[in-house]
Amino acid sequence: MLIRFMKNNLIRPSIVKMLAYTPGEQPRIPGLIKLNTNETPYPPSPKVARAIRRILNGSLRLYPDPVCLNLRAAIAKRYGFKIDEVFCGNGSDEILGACFRAFVDGGQVVQFPFPTYSLYPVLSKIHHARIREIPCGKDFSLALAQFDPRATLTFVANPNSPTGTLLSNAFLRKLARRLKGVLVIDEAYVDFAKSHALPLVRTEKNVIVTRTSSKSFALAGLRVGYAIGNRELIGALFKIKDSYNLDRLAQAAGQAAIEDIAYHRRLIKKVNRTREWCRRELIKRGWHTPPSEGNFLFTRPARHPAKKWLDILRKNKILIRWFEHPQIRDWLRISIGSDAEMRQLLKIVDKSN
Amino acid sequence: MLIRFMKNNLIRPSIVKMLAYTPGEQPRIPGLIKLNTNETPYPPSPKVARAIRRILNGSLRLYPDPVCLNLRAAIAKRYGFKIDEVFCGNGSDEILGACFRAFVDGGQVVQFPFPTYSLYPVLSKIHHARIREIPCGKDFSLALAQFDPRATLTFVANPNSPTGTLLSNAFLRKLARRLKGVLVIDEAYVDFAKSHALPLVRTEKNVIVTRTSSKSFALAGLRVGYAIGNRELIGALFKIKDSYNLDRLAQAAGQAAIEDIAYHRRLIKKVNRTREWCRRELIKRGWHTPPSEGNFLFTRPARHPAKKWLDILRKNKILIRWFEHPQIRDWLRISIGSDAEMRQLLKIVDKSN
Repeated sequence: MLIRFMKNNLIRPSIVKMLAYTPGEQPRIPGLIKLNTNETPYPPSPKVARAIRRILNGSLRLYPDPVCLNLRAAIAKRYGFKIDEVFCGNGSDEILGACFRAFVDGGQVVQFPFPTYSLYPVLSKIHHARIREIPCGKDFSLALAQFDPRATLTFVANPNSPTGTLLSNAFLRKLARRLKGVLVIDEAYVDFAKSHALPLVRTEKNVIVTRTSSKSFALAGLRVGYAIGNRELIGALFKIKDSYNLDRLAQAAGQAAIEDIAYHRRLIKKVNRTREWCRRELIKRGWHTPPSEGNFLFTRPARHPAKKWLDILRKNKILIRWFEHPQIRDWLRISIGSDAEMRQLLKIVDKSN
Repeated sequence: MLIRFMKNNLIRPSIVKMLAYTPGEQPRIPGLIKLNTNETPYPPSPKVARAIRRILNGSLRLYPDPVCLNLRAAIAKRYGFKIDEVFCGNGSDEILGACFRAFVDGGQVVQFPFPTYSLYPVLSKIHHARIREIPCGKDFSLALAQFDPRATLTFVANPNSPTGTLLSNAFLRKLARRLKGVLVIDEAYVDFAKSHALPLVRTEKNVIVTRTSSKSFALAGLRVGYAIGNRELIGALFKIKDSYNLDRLAQAAGQAAIEDIAYHRRLIKKVNRTREWCRRELIKRGWHTPPSEGNFLFTRPARHPAKKWLDILRKNKILIRWFEHPQIRDWLRISIGSDAEMRQLLKIVDKSN
């Protein structure tokens, strides 16, 4: 961050103490291969640009639809839900924050596994929740009994980042039924996985599934997230949202991307194929690389410590992600880029492996 | 809203009780004259579309700059501040919410005048603040002594909506010095006014000025708000913001709009000229219409009650805004449209006046 924070009685003490969430770097070095923030190497559907161009001819001066009807209708149609079971947000990050404002009073328990998306603890602190971190096993597995049934809000990223692991719907259903509070299943990466939890929304009244167009729809540059859940929960999110939380271009782009099913499927297939090939190549090189259900691999490298590999790759203009925490500091998260980008990665690996 | 809210112990009791903020209608009737949400009748700078088109050729798949450096640099340059005195948000609405998360713990006093922007009480309820509403005088004036010095957060929309009144910088400076907490001066409409409060940011450590590109920059369809304040306060907003709160297109569009100073000035001049002409015309017709410093007029109509005029105009495909509250139910807020739109309004008025 740019700014140092001093004691200041204008600012909430809990915020003064807090460290900001650190997103993966977004540097602007030409020729850089960015495998650090799980973006997609391919562009979005060409229908996205067309939809945006249409709006440029006139309506930018007008407020967007405050309730995103067309976009929600497209999502509802594609996944077989009713429009009032769908909420849209400025990225799924906004939806995660909205879940706190709708469901959590200060002092209540919010739980999530570790390691996982590092925004959950940041949001928990902002909203004065009591954080309960559930440590994953050595193989990044979780047991039902680890979850506190009384938690007001439970987050499970599925597939999980950075580990790439997927919980079964049978597990998630048991978890939902164990919990008194709301279960948010954060499916940012689910389109790259072999199953998804939307069927649970139909049977479990306390489940919200969140998704994003940043990964499999190749729209990280826009911010289009959505949530699917029963209408009571979705209705609460509507109550506390900003009046115009999603701009015209994002709504139109999101809709175009969601509706282009053929393009979406092709893109996912391509990324997954590259992931599987790349996984085999890393394993050949002695890197411990469990299966991943996301558009990234989580791998324990050979020969050098993970941090050293981070530096080696960075020197060669390849950015990947490393997390400074005892449980995962031996691991690297590598986003799946194009085949050429992954070949370049393997080439650099081979030089120092 | 689409959804009825039932008792549900998954949702915070305060949210269950709450009514959602109701934005002005955004209907899609062809030929409608929209004078109800203070949009601008003219398109944004042509440089906006150009900036957006450039991004369509490639980088939508990549995350935006999380800290909006180029946009903030443009704002800092235009208004003579340092880049770390500038924060950008997904509309100034997001910034207003961020002020709660950064400065207000539950149970603290948040104050604002009445009538004013109806989002302040909504946000106050979401964040468990104790609301202190400061009633305006009959002429919509405010006295310094009405403000509670101990309030944690004070909002003053300046110019105020729906009244169009402007507080002087001398008043605001005294107010800032009276207050122990943070003073947010919401300048959504200030570009149409004869003064602005940015000079106060330089001398008062507890002042944040918020602005939007929705009005004078004709970018309501995007969501680009910004805040200028001392770096301690701005730094706190950065800590609690979503990691990528402003998308690529919004950042580029906002920057292009801010940098096209000549276009911006022309647009403001045009709107203000129409406003003054329209005000004289309404006064001629016996409508009590005080001066306004926004891109709207607040007027007490002749002959029929305000609500009746709302219906008459709606029947004639003109939307304006009426607020159901005893103190202002005799008034109408009319956004300044194009000359042709205002002529049409006056024509309908003449038929029933």
